[in-house]
Amino acid sequence: MQTTPIRTRFVLINTSHAGNVGAVARAMKVMGFSDLVLVAPRWPNVLRREETIARASGALDVLGQARIVDTLDQALEGMTHLCATAMTPRDFGPPTRSPREHFAQLFESADQAASQDDNQGEGISGVAFLFGSERFGMRNEDVYRCHVALSIPTHPDFGSLNLAAALQVIAYEWRLALGGFAKTTVAQSPSKADAQQVAGMLAHWEEALMAIGFLDPQAPKKLMPRLNQLFNRAELTAEEIHILRGVAKSMLEAAERAKG
Amino acid sequence: MQTTPIRTRFVLINTSHAGNVGAVARAMKVMGFSDLVLVAPRWPNVLRREETIARASGALDVLGQARIVDTLDQALEGMTHLCATAMTPRDFGPPTRSPREHFAQLFESADQAASQDDNQGEGISGVAFLFGSERFGMRNEDVYRCHVALSIPTHPDFGSLNLAAALQVIAYEWRLALGGFAKTTVAQSPSKADAQQVAGMLAHWEEALMAIGFLDPQAPKKLMPRLNQLFNRAELTAEEIHILRGVAKSMLEAAERAKG
Repeated sequence: MQTTPIRTRFVLINTSHAGNVGAVARAMKVMGFSDLVLVAPRWPNVLRREETIARASGALDVLGQARIVDTLDQALEGMTHLCATAMTPRDFGPPTRSPREHFAQLFESADQAASQDDNQGEGISGVAFLFGSERFGMRNEDVYRCHVALSIPTHPDFGSLNLAAALQVIAYEWRLALGGFAKTTVAQSPSKADAQQVAGMLAHWEEALMAIGFLDPQAPKKLMPRLNQLFNRAELTAEEIHILRGVAKSMLEAAERAKG
Repeated sequence: MQTTPIRTRFVLINTSHAGNVGAVARAMKVMGFSDLVLVAPRWPNVLRREETIARASGALDVLGQARIVDTLDQALEGMTHLCATAMTPRDFGPPTRSPREHFAQLFESADQAASQDDNQGEGISGVAFLFGSERFGMRNEDVYRCHVALSIPTHPDFGSLNLAAALQVIAYEWRLALGGFAKTTVAQSPSKADAQQVAGMLAHWEEALMAIGFLDPQAPKKLMPRLNQLFNRAELTAEEIHILRGVAKSMLEAAERAKG
Protein backbone atom coordinates (compact mmCIF):
# COMPACT_ATOMS: atom_id res chain seq x y z
CA MET A 1 0.00 0.00 0.00
CA GLN A 2 1.37 3.35 -1.03
CA THR A 3 0.75 6.18 1.34
CA THR A 4 1.40 9.87 0.83
CA PRO A 5 0.23 12.87 2.80
CA ILE A 6 -2.87 14.63 1.57
CA ARG A 7 -2.18 17.98 -0.07
CA THR A 8 -4.54 20.76 0.95
CA ARG A 9 -5.10 23.92 -1.09
CA PHE A 10 -7.33 26.92 -0.49
CA VAL A 11 -8.55 28.73 -3.60
CA LEU A 12 -10.11 32.19 -3.44
CA ILE A 13 -12.04 33.17 -6.57
CA ASN A 14 -12.57 36.87 -7.43
CA THR A 15 -11.95 38.05 -3.90
CA SER A 16 -12.66 41.78 -3.44
CA HIS A 17 -11.38 42.72 0.00
CA ALA A 18 -7.68 42.81 0.73
CA GLY A 19 -8.37 42.46 4.44
CA ASN A 20 -10.04 39.13 3.83
CA VAL A 21 -7.00 37.81 1.96
CA GLY A 22 -4.80 38.68 4.92
CA ALA A 23 -7.24 37.15 7.39
CA VAL A 24 -7.40 34.02 5.24
CA ALA A 25 -3.61 33.64 5.31
CA ARG A 26 -3.69 33.87 9.09
CA ALA A 27 -6.63 31.45 9.38
CA MET A 28 -4.78 28.93 7.21
CA LYS A 29 -1.50 29.24 9.07
CA VAL A 30 -2.98 28.66 12.53
CA MET A 31 -4.39 25.42 11.18
CA GLY A 32 -1.06 24.46 9.63
CA PHE A 33 -1.93 25.03 5.95
CA SER A 34 0.08 27.12 3.51
CA ASP A 35 -1.06 26.51 -0.07
CA LEU A 36 -3.12 29.54 -1.14
CA VAL A 37 -4.13 30.37 -4.72
CA LEU A 38 -6.07 33.47 -5.76
CA VAL A 39 -8.02 33.34 -8.99
CA ALA A 40 -8.44 36.79 -10.59
CA PRO A 41 -8.62 38.84 -7.39
CA ARG A 42 -9.99 42.37 -7.62
CA TRP A 43 -6.58 43.88 -6.76
CA PRO A 44 -3.65 42.47 -8.74
CA ASN A 45 -1.31 43.63 -5.96
CA VAL A 46 -3.53 42.23 -3.22
CA LEU A 47 -0.72 40.18 -1.66
CA ARG A 48 1.24 43.36 -0.95
CA ARG A 49 -1.53 45.74 0.12
CA GLU A 50 -1.37 47.36 3.52
CA GLU A 51 -4.67 45.93 4.76
CA THR A 52 -3.70 42.43 3.62
CA ILE A 53 -0.48 42.55 5.56
CA ALA A 54 -2.13 44.04 8.66
CA ARG A 55 -4.79 41.34 8.82
CA ALA A 56 -2.32 38.52 8.03
CA SER A 57 -0.64 39.33 11.34
CA GLY A 58 2.41 37.12 11.09
CA ALA A 59 1.27 34.80 8.31
CA LEU A 60 3.42 36.66 5.78
CA ASP A 61 5.03 33.42 4.65
CA VAL A 62 1.64 32.18 3.45
CA LEU A 63 1.15 35.41 1.48
CA GLY A 64 4.70 35.14 0.16
CA GLN A 65 4.08 31.67 -1.25
CA ALA A 66 0.59 32.44 -2.56
CA ARG A 67 0.01 32.31 -6.31
CA ILE A 68 -2.26 34.51 -8.40
CA VAL A 69 -3.73 32.93 -11.54
CA ASP A 70 -6.26 33.96 -14.19
CA THR A 71 -8.54 30.93 -14.26
CA LEU A 72 -9.86 28.36 -11.83
CA ASP A 73 -8.38 25.62 -14.00
CA GLN A 74 -4.87 26.92 -13.37
CA ALA A 75 -5.55 26.83 -9.64
CA LEU A 76 -6.53 23.17 -9.55
CA GLU A 77 -3.49 21.39 -10.91
CA GLY A 78 -2.88 18.17 -8.98
CA MET A 79 -6.09 18.43 -6.97
CA THR A 80 -8.33 15.34 -7.02
CA HIS A 81 -11.16 16.29 -4.67
CA LEU A 82 -12.87 19.67 -5.03
CA CYS A 83 -15.00 21.16 -2.28
CA ALA A 84 -17.16 24.14 -3.16
CA THR A 85 -18.34 26.35 -0.36
CA ALA A 86 -21.86 27.55 -0.97
CA MET A 87 -24.70 28.77 1.16
CA THR A 88 -27.37 27.81 -1.34
CA PRO A 89 -27.55 24.34 -2.90
CA ARG A 90 -27.59 24.32 -6.70
CA ASP A 91 -29.92 22.18 -8.75
CA PHE A 92 -27.83 19.66 -10.70
CA GLY A 93 -24.90 20.49 -8.47
CA PRO A 94 -22.98 18.20 -6.19
CA PRO A 95 -24.50 17.07 -2.90
CA THR A 96 -24.59 19.68 -0.13
CA ARG A 97 -23.11 18.52 3.16
CA SER A 98 -21.80 20.02 6.35
CA PRO A 99 -18.00 19.95 6.60
CA ARG A 100 -17.99 17.54 9.54
CA GLU A 101 -20.36 15.12 7.87
CA HIS A 102 -18.47 15.20 4.58
CA PHE A 103 -14.98 14.77 6.03
CA ALA A 104 -16.16 11.80 8.09
CA GLN A 105 -17.59 10.17 4.95
CA LEU A 106 -14.45 10.93 3.00
CA PHE A 107 -12.18 9.10 5.41
CA GLU A 108 -14.66 6.30 5.84
CA SER A 109 -14.67 5.52 2.13
CA ALA A 110 -10.89 5.92 1.92
CA ASP A 111 -10.56 3.41 4.77
CA GLN A 112 -12.89 0.98 3.04
CA ALA A 113 -10.93 1.28 -0.18
CA ALA A 114 -7.65 0.73 1.62
CA SER A 115 -8.93 -2.44 3.23
CA GLN A 116 -9.67 -4.09 -0.12
CA ASP A 117 -6.96 -6.31 -1.57
CA ASP A 118 -7.57 -5.15 -5.11
CA ASN A 119 -7.77 -1.51 -4.17
CA GLN A 120 -8.06 0.55 -7.35
CA GLY A 121 -7.06 3.77 -5.69
CA GLU A 122 -10.00 5.39 -3.98
CA GLY A 123 -7.61 7.46 -1.88
CA ILE A 124 -7.48 11.22 -1.74
CA SER A 125 -4.27 12.93 -2.73
CA GLY A 126 -5.15 16.58 -3.24
CA VAL A 127 -8.08 18.41 -1.67
CA ALA A 128 -9.00 21.93 -2.78
CA PHE A 129 -11.43 24.20 -0.94
CA LEU A 130 -12.96 26.82 -3.21
CA PHE A 131 -14.36 30.14 -1.98
CA GLY A 132 -16.30 32.54 -4.20
CA SER A 133 -16.38 36.32 -4.09
CA GLU A 134 -17.70 38.15 -1.03
CA ARG A 135 -20.69 39.55 -2.87
CA PHE A 136 -21.73 36.82 -5.26
CA GLY A 137 -20.33 33.59 -3.88
CA MET A 138 -19.38 30.92 -6.42
CA ARG A 139 -20.54 30.80 -10.03
CA ASN A 140 -22.76 27.85 -10.88
CA GLU A 141 -20.29 26.45 -13.40
CA ASP A 142 -17.54 26.45 -10.78
CA VAL A 143 -19.79 24.65 -8.28
CA TYR A 144 -20.78 22.05 -10.87
CA ARG A 145 -17.28 20.71 -11.23
CA CYS A 146 -16.91 20.11 -7.50
CA HIS A 147 -17.41 16.82 -5.68
CA VAL A 148 -19.33 18.39 -2.83
CA ALA A 149 -20.75 21.73 -1.76
CA LEU A 150 -19.79 22.34 1.84
CA SER A 151 -22.34 24.30 3.81
CA ILE A 152 -21.47 25.44 7.30
CA PRO A 153 -24.54 25.23 9.53
CA THR A 154 -25.72 28.80 10.14
CA HIS A 155 -28.85 30.51 11.37
CA PRO A 156 -31.60 30.16 8.75
CA ASP A 157 -32.26 33.92 8.80
CA PHE A 158 -28.65 35.07 8.75
CA GLY A 159 -26.19 32.85 6.92
CA SER A 160 -23.80 35.66 6.05
CA LEU A 161 -20.48 34.23 7.17
CA ASN A 162 -17.46 36.40 6.51
CA LEU A 163 -15.10 34.82 3.96
CA ALA A 164 -12.20 34.42 6.37
CA ALA A 165 -14.51 33.21 9.15
CA ALA A 166 -15.93 30.52 6.86
CA LEU A 167 -12.44 29.51 5.83
CA GLN A 168 -11.37 29.41 9.48
CA VAL A 169 -14.17 26.99 10.34
CA ILE A 170 -13.45 24.74 7.36
CA ALA A 171 -9.69 24.77 7.95
CA TYR A 172 -10.34 23.88 11.59
CA GLU A 173 -12.69 21.02 10.74
CA TRP A 174 -10.33 19.74 8.07
CA ARG A 175 -7.36 19.86 10.42
CA LEU A 176 -9.30 17.89 13.03
CA ALA A 177 -10.43 15.42 10.35
CA LEU A 178 -6.76 14.95 9.43
CA GLY A 179 -6.12 14.00 13.04
CA GLY A 180 -5.12 17.31 14.57
CA PHE A 181 -1.48 18.14 14.42
CA ALA A 182 -0.27 14.57 14.34
CA LYS A 183 1.18 13.42 11.05
CA THR A 184 -1.39 11.75 8.83
CA THR A 185 -1.29 9.66 5.70
CA VAL A 186 -3.94 7.83 3.76
CA ALA A 187 -3.81 5.14 1.17
CA GLN A 188 -3.79 6.50 -2.33
CA SER A 189 -3.11 5.43 -5.84
CA PRO A 190 -1.11 7.60 -8.23
CA SER A 191 -3.50 6.73 -11.05
CA LYS A 192 -6.37 8.95 -10.01
CA ALA A 193 -7.30 11.71 -12.47
CA ASP A 194 -7.01 15.27 -11.27
CA ALA A 195 -9.58 18.00 -11.83
CA GLN A 196 -7.80 19.37 -14.89
CA GLN A 197 -7.83 15.98 -16.59
CA VAL A 198 -11.54 15.57 -15.85
CA ALA A 199 -12.28 19.06 -17.20
CA GLY A 200 -10.25 18.36 -20.36
CA MET A 201 -12.08 15.10 -20.95
CA LEU A 202 -15.46 16.80 -20.43
CA ALA A 203 -14.58 19.53 -22.93
CA HIS A 204 -13.68 16.79 -25.43
CA TRP A 205 -17.03 15.09 -24.77
CA GLU A 206 -18.95 18.32 -25.11
CA GLU A 207 -17.47 18.82 -28.55
CA ALA A 208 -18.23 15.22 -29.54
CA LEU A 209 -21.80 15.27 -28.21
CA MET A 210 -22.50 18.37 -30.24
CA ALA A 211 -20.94 16.77 -33.33
CA ILE A 212 -23.15 13.68 -33.12
CA GLY A 213 -26.19 15.86 -32.50
CA PHE A 214 -26.95 14.80 -28.93
CA LEU A 215 -26.10 18.10 -27.28
CA ASP A 216 -27.94 21.11 -28.64
CA PRO A 217 -25.95 24.22 -27.72
CA GLN A 218 -29.19 26.23 -27.93
CA ALA A 219 -30.84 23.96 -25.35
CA PRO A 220 -28.07 22.30 -23.35
CA LYS A 221 -30.43 21.23 -20.55
CA LYS A 222 -27.61 21.11 -17.99
CA LEU A 223 -26.21 18.07 -19.76
CA MET A 224 -22.57 18.87 -19.08
CA PRO A 225 -23.02 19.62 -15.36
CA ARG A 226 -24.93 16.37 -15.06
CA LEU A 227 -22.17 14.39 -16.75
CA ASN A 228 -19.60 16.22 -14.64
CA GLN A 229 -21.39 15.10 -11.47
CA LEU A 230 -21.71 11.54 -12.73
CA PHE A 231 -17.98 11.32 -13.49
CA ASN A 232 -17.06 12.99 -10.21
CA ARG A 233 -18.97 10.33 -8.33
CA ALA A 234 -17.11 7.66 -10.29
CA GLU A 235 -13.74 9.13 -9.17
CA LEU A 236 -12.12 8.44 -12.53
CA THR A 237 -8.68 6.99 -12.92
CA ALA A 238 -6.22 8.37 -15.45
CA GLU A 239 -6.76 5.25 -17.53
CA GLU A 240 -10.52 5.83 -17.62
CA ILE A 241 -9.95 9.40 -18.76
CA HIS A 242 -7.96 7.90 -21.62
CA ILE A 243 -10.83 5.54 -22.51
CA LEU A 244 -13.45 8.28 -22.34
CA ARG A 245 -11.36 10.54 -24.55
CA GLY A 246 -11.07 7.64 -27.01
CA VAL A 247 -14.87 7.42 -27.10
CA ALA A 248 -15.10 11.17 -27.77
CA LYS A 249 -12.53 10.92 -30.56
CA SER A 250 -14.48 8.10 -32.22
CA MET A 251 -17.71 10.07 -31.93
CA LEU A 252 -16.06 13.04 -33.65
CA GLU A 253 -14.69 10.81 -36.42
CA ALA A 254 -18.10 9.21 -37.00
CA ALA A 255 -19.68 12.65 -37.18
CA GLU A 256 -17.01 13.76 -39.64
CA ARG A 257 -17.64 10.74 -41.86
CA ALA A 258 -21.39 11.44 -41.65
CA LYS A 259 -20.81 14.93 -43.06
CA GLY A 260 -18.58 13.72 -45.87
CA MET B 1 -34.03 16.87 32.51
CA GLN B 2 -33.05 20.17 30.97
CA THR B 3 -36.32 22.09 30.91
CA THR B 4 -35.20 25.63 30.14
CA PRO B 5 -33.08 26.54 27.14
CA ILE B 6 -29.45 27.25 27.84
CA ARG B 7 -28.58 30.93 27.67
CA THR B 8 -25.36 31.73 25.83
CA ARG B 9 -23.35 34.91 26.29
CA PHE B 10 -20.13 36.11 24.71
CA VAL B 11 -17.99 38.43 26.80
CA LEU B 12 -15.14 40.48 25.32
CA ILE B 13 -12.70 41.85 27.87
CA ASN B 14 -10.59 44.95 27.08
CA THR B 15 -10.99 44.59 23.34
CA SER B 16 -8.86 47.04 21.33
CA HIS B 17 -9.94 46.79 17.71
CA ALA B 18 -13.33 48.08 16.64
CA GLY B 19 -13.21 45.84 13.56
CA ASN B 20 -13.01 42.79 15.78
CA VAL B 21 -16.13 43.83 17.69
CA GLY B 22 -18.06 44.10 14.43
CA ALA B 23 -16.72 40.77 13.18
CA VAL B 24 -17.66 39.18 16.51
CA ALA B 25 -21.27 40.40 16.20
CA ARG B 26 -21.46 38.86 12.73
CA ALA B 27 -19.85 35.60 13.86
CA MET B 28 -22.35 35.32 16.71
CA LYS B 29 -25.36 36.07 14.58
CA VAL B 30 -24.60 33.47 11.91
CA MET B 31 -24.53 30.91 14.70
CA GLY B 32 -27.80 32.20 16.14
CA PHE B 33 -26.44 33.95 19.25
CA SER B 34 -27.15 37.55 20.25
CA ASP B 35 -26.02 38.19 23.83
CA LEU B 36 -22.80 40.23 23.67
CA VAL B 37 -21.21 42.07 26.59
CA LEU B 38 -18.06 44.20 26.38
CA VAL B 39 -16.02 44.72 29.53
CA ALA B 40 -14.06 48.01 29.46
CA PRO B 41 -13.34 48.14 25.73
CA ARG B 42 -10.61 50.49 24.53
CA TRP B 43 -13.13 52.69 22.69
CA PRO B 44 -16.20 53.66 24.78
CA ASN B 45 -18.11 54.31 21.53
CA VAL B 46 -16.95 51.07 19.95
CA LEU B 47 -20.48 49.88 19.15
CA ARG B 48 -21.03 52.89 16.90
CA ARG B 49 -17.64 53.17 15.20
CA GLU B 50 -17.42 53.01 11.44
CA GLU B 51 -15.17 49.96 11.33
CA THR B 52 -17.36 48.10 13.80
CA ILE B 53 -20.43 48.64 11.66
CA ALA B 54 -18.62 47.78 8.43
CA ARG B 55 -17.34 44.48 9.78
CA ALA B 56 -20.66 43.60 11.45
CA SER B 57 -22.18 43.44 7.98
CA GLY B 58 -25.85 43.08 8.85
CA ALA B 59 -25.51 42.00 12.46
CA LEU B 60 -26.42 45.48 13.65
CA ASP B 61 -29.11 44.07 15.93
CA VAL B 62 -26.44 42.24 17.92
CA LEU B 63 -24.49 45.49 18.28
CA GLY B 64 -27.70 47.33 19.19
CA GLN B 65 -28.43 44.93 22.04
CA ALA B 66 -24.83 44.70 23.26
CA ARG B 67 -23.98 46.04 26.69
CA ILE B 68 -20.83 47.78 27.83
CA VAL B 69 -19.85 47.30 31.49
CA ASP B 70 -16.89 48.24 33.66
CA THR B 71 -16.06 44.94 35.33
CA LEU B 72 -16.18 41.26 34.44
CA ASP B 73 -18.44 40.66 37.41
CA GLN B 74 -21.14 42.85 35.89
CA ALA B 75 -20.92 40.87 32.67
CA LEU B 76 -21.57 37.52 34.27
CA GLU B 77 -24.97 37.95 35.90
CA GLY B 78 -27.08 34.80 35.48
CA MET B 79 -24.23 32.78 34.01
CA THR B 80 -23.53 29.41 35.62
CA HIS B 81 -20.75 27.97 33.51
CA LEU B 82 -17.76 30.09 32.51
CA CYS B 83 -15.45 29.18 29.67
CA ALA B 84 -12.17 31.05 29.38
CA THR B 85 -10.43 31.08 26.04
CA ALA B 86 -6.70 30.86 26.40
CA MET B 87 -3.82 29.72 24.28
CA THR B 88 -1.57 28.99 27.22
CA PRO B 89 -2.70 26.88 30.16
CA ARG B 90 -2.31 28.58 33.54
CA ASP B 91 -0.84 26.89 36.57
CA PHE B 92 -3.56 26.53 39.18
CA GLY B 93 -6.14 27.38 36.54
CA PRO B 94 -9.07 25.29 35.34
CA PRO B 95 -8.45 22.31 33.07
CA THR B 96 -7.55 23.13 29.48
CA ARG B 97 -9.66 21.32 26.91
CA SER B 98 -10.53 21.61 23.25
CA PRO B 99 -14.03 23.01 22.65
CA ARG B 100 -15.32 19.79 21.11
CA GLU B 101 -14.03 17.64 23.93
CA HIS B 102 -15.37 19.96 26.60
CA PHE B 103 -18.85 20.39 25.14
CA ALA B 104 -19.22 16.64 24.78
CA GLN B 105 -18.27 16.20 28.46
CA LEU B 106 -20.60 18.98 29.50
CA PHE B 107 -23.66 17.37 27.96
CA GLU B 108 -22.61 13.95 29.16
CA SER B 109 -22.48 15.08 32.79
CA ALA B 110 -25.71 17.07 32.40
CA ASP B 111 -27.36 13.90 31.15
CA GLN B 112 -26.01 11.94 34.09
CA ALA B 113 -27.27 14.55 36.51
CA ALA B 114 -30.67 14.57 34.85
CA SER B 115 -30.97 10.83 35.26
CA GLN B 116 -30.80 11.11 39.04
CA ASP B 117 -34.19 11.22 40.72
CA ASP B 118 -33.30 13.84 43.29
CA ASN B 119 -31.69 16.14 40.80
CA GLN B 120 -32.98 19.66 41.39
CA GLY B 121 -31.03 21.44 38.72
CA GLU B 122 -27.59 20.20 37.98
CA GLY B 123 -28.21 21.29 34.40
CA ILE B 124 -26.54 24.18 32.70
CA SER B 125 -28.59 27.33 32.49
CA GLY B 126 -26.17 30.04 31.43
CA VAL B 127 -22.89 29.58 29.58
CA ALA B 128 -20.49 32.48 29.10
CA PHE B 129 -17.52 32.46 26.76
CA LEU B 130 -14.83 34.93 27.78
CA PHE B 131 -12.30 36.44 25.39
CA GLY B 132 -9.33 38.54 26.48
CA SER B 133 -7.69 41.46 24.72
CA GLU B 134 -6.01 41.02 21.36
CA ARG B 135 -2.55 41.72 22.70
CA PHE B 136 -2.53 40.16 26.16
CA GLY B 137 -5.26 37.55 26.21
CA MET B 138 -7.00 36.96 29.52
CA ARG B 139 -5.65 37.97 32.91
CA ASN B 140 -4.79 35.11 35.22
CA GLU B 141 -7.38 36.10 37.82
CA ASP B 142 -10.11 36.10 35.18
CA VAL B 143 -9.09 32.64 33.96
CA TYR B 144 -9.03 31.29 37.53
CA ARG B 145 -12.73 31.86 38.06
CA CYS B 146 -13.67 29.90 34.95
CA HIS B 147 -14.76 26.27 34.84
CA VAL B 148 -12.60 25.45 31.87
CA ALA B 149 -10.02 27.06 29.60
CA LEU B 150 -10.97 26.32 26.04
CA SER B 151 -8.03 25.94 23.68
CA ILE B 152 -8.67 25.61 19.95
CA PRO B 153 -6.18 23.20 18.37
CA THR B 154 -3.71 25.28 16.35
CA HIS B 155 -0.30 24.80 14.80
CA PRO B 156 2.34 24.53 17.52
CA ASP B 157 4.47 27.24 15.87
CA PHE B 158 1.66 29.67 15.06
CA GLY B 159 -1.26 29.75 17.45
CA SER B 160 -2.20 33.35 16.76
CA LEU B 161 -5.92 33.10 16.07
CA ASN B 162 -7.71 36.36 15.38
CA LEU B 163 -10.23 37.20 18.11
CA ALA B 164 -13.26 37.01 15.83
CA ALA B 165 -11.95 33.87 14.15
CA ALA B 166 -11.55 32.15 17.51
CA LEU B 167 -15.02 33.25 18.53
CA GLN B 168 -16.40 31.99 15.21
CA VAL B 169 -14.95 28.53 15.82
CA ILE B 170 -16.24 28.36 19.38
CA ALA B 171 -19.70 29.68 18.45
CA TYR B 172 -19.82 27.07 15.67
CA GLU B 173 -18.80 24.20 17.95
CA TRP B 174 -21.22 25.34 20.63
CA ARG B 175 -24.09 25.61 18.16
CA LEU B 176 -23.41 22.07 16.92
CA ALA B 177 -23.19 20.85 20.52
CA LEU B 178 -26.62 22.41 21.13
CA GLY B 179 -27.97 20.38 18.25
CA GLY B 180 -27.36 22.67 15.28
CA PHE B 181 -30.03 24.23 13.16
CA ALA B 182 -32.92 22.45 11.55
CA LYS B 183 -31.61 21.13 8.28
CA THR B 184 -32.62 23.11 5.22
CA THR B 185 -31.32 20.71 2.64
CA VAL B 186 -32.61 20.07 -0.85
CA ALA B 187 -30.67 16.81 -0.95
CA GLN B 188 -33.27 15.00 -2.98
CA SER B 189 -32.13 11.42 -3.27
CA PRO B 190 -32.92 10.51 -6.85
CA SER B 191 -33.87 6.91 -7.48
CA LYS B 192 -30.91 4.70 -8.30
CA ALA B 193 -30.98 2.64 -11.45
CA ASP B 194 -31.15 -1.09 -10.87
CA ALA B 195 -28.74 -3.65 -12.32
CA GLN B 196 -31.03 -4.48 -15.23
CA GLN B 197 -31.23 -0.87 -16.30
CA VAL B 198 -27.44 -0.55 -16.12
CA ALA B 199 -26.97 -3.75 -18.13
CA GLY B 200 -29.48 -2.60 -20.76
CA MET B 201 -27.72 0.74 -21.09
CA LEU B 202 -24.32 -0.97 -21.40
CA ALA B 203 -25.62 -3.26 -24.18
CA HIS B 204 -26.85 -0.16 -25.98
CA TRP B 205 -23.41 1.45 -25.55
CA GLU B 206 -21.60 -1.66 -26.73
CA GLU B 207 -23.58 -1.58 -29.96
CA ALA B 208 -22.95 2.15 -30.39
CA LEU B 209 -19.21 1.94 -29.63
CA MET B 210 -18.84 -0.77 -32.27
CA ALA B 211 -20.83 1.32 -34.76
CA ILE B 212 -18.58 4.37 -34.35
CA GLY B 213 -15.51 2.16 -34.56
CA PHE B 214 -14.19 2.58 -31.01
CA LEU B 215 -14.84 -0.98 -29.86
CA ASP B 216 -13.25 -3.69 -31.98
CA PRO B 217 -15.13 -6.97 -31.34
CA GLN B 218 -11.96 -8.87 -32.35
CA ALA B 219 -9.92 -7.06 -29.66
CA PRO B 220 -12.35 -5.78 -27.05
CA LYS B 221 -9.61 -5.20 -24.43
CA LYS B 222 -12.02 -5.54 -21.51
CA LEU B 223 -13.61 -2.25 -22.53
CA MET B 224 -17.15 -3.16 -21.49
CA PRO B 225 -16.19 -4.56 -18.07
CA ARG B 226 -14.18 -1.41 -17.46
CA LEU B 227 -17.10 0.84 -18.37
CA ASN B 228 -19.35 -1.32 -16.24
CA GLN B 229 -17.08 -0.77 -13.24
CA LEU B 230 -16.89 2.96 -13.89
CA PHE B 231 -20.68 3.29 -14.06
CA ASN B 232 -21.14 1.08 -11.02
CA ARG B 233 -18.94 3.34 -8.98
CA ALA B 234 -20.99 6.33 -10.13
CA GLU B 235 -24.19 4.69 -8.82
CA LEU B 236 -26.25 5.91 -11.75
CA THR B 237 -29.71 7.35 -11.36
CA ALA B 238 -32.58 6.38 -13.64
CA GLU B 239 -32.34 9.81 -15.24
CA GLU B 240 -28.65 9.33 -16.01
CA ILE B 241 -29.42 5.97 -17.64
CA HIS B 242 -31.81 7.89 -19.87
CA ILE B 243 -29.10 10.42 -20.76
CA LEU B 244 -26.50 7.72 -21.46
CA ARG B 245 -28.95 5.83 -23.68
CA GLY B 246 -29.56 9.10 -25.54
CA VAL B 247 -25.82 9.39 -26.15
CA ALA B 248 -25.73 5.81 -27.50
CA LYS B 249 -28.68 6.51 -29.77
CA SER B 250 -26.97 9.61 -31.19
CA MET B 251 -23.75 7.66 -31.74
CA LEU B 252 -25.67 5.00 -33.71
CA GLU B 253 -27.40 7.66 -35.79
CA ALA B 254 -24.11 9.38 -36.58
CA ALA B 255 -22.60 6.04 -37.60
CA GLU B 256 -25.64 5.33 -39.78
CA ARG B 257 -25.29 8.70 -41.53
CA ALA B 258 -21.56 7.98 -42.03
CA LYS B 259 -22.42 4.77 -43.87
CA GLY B 260 -25.08 6.34 -46.07
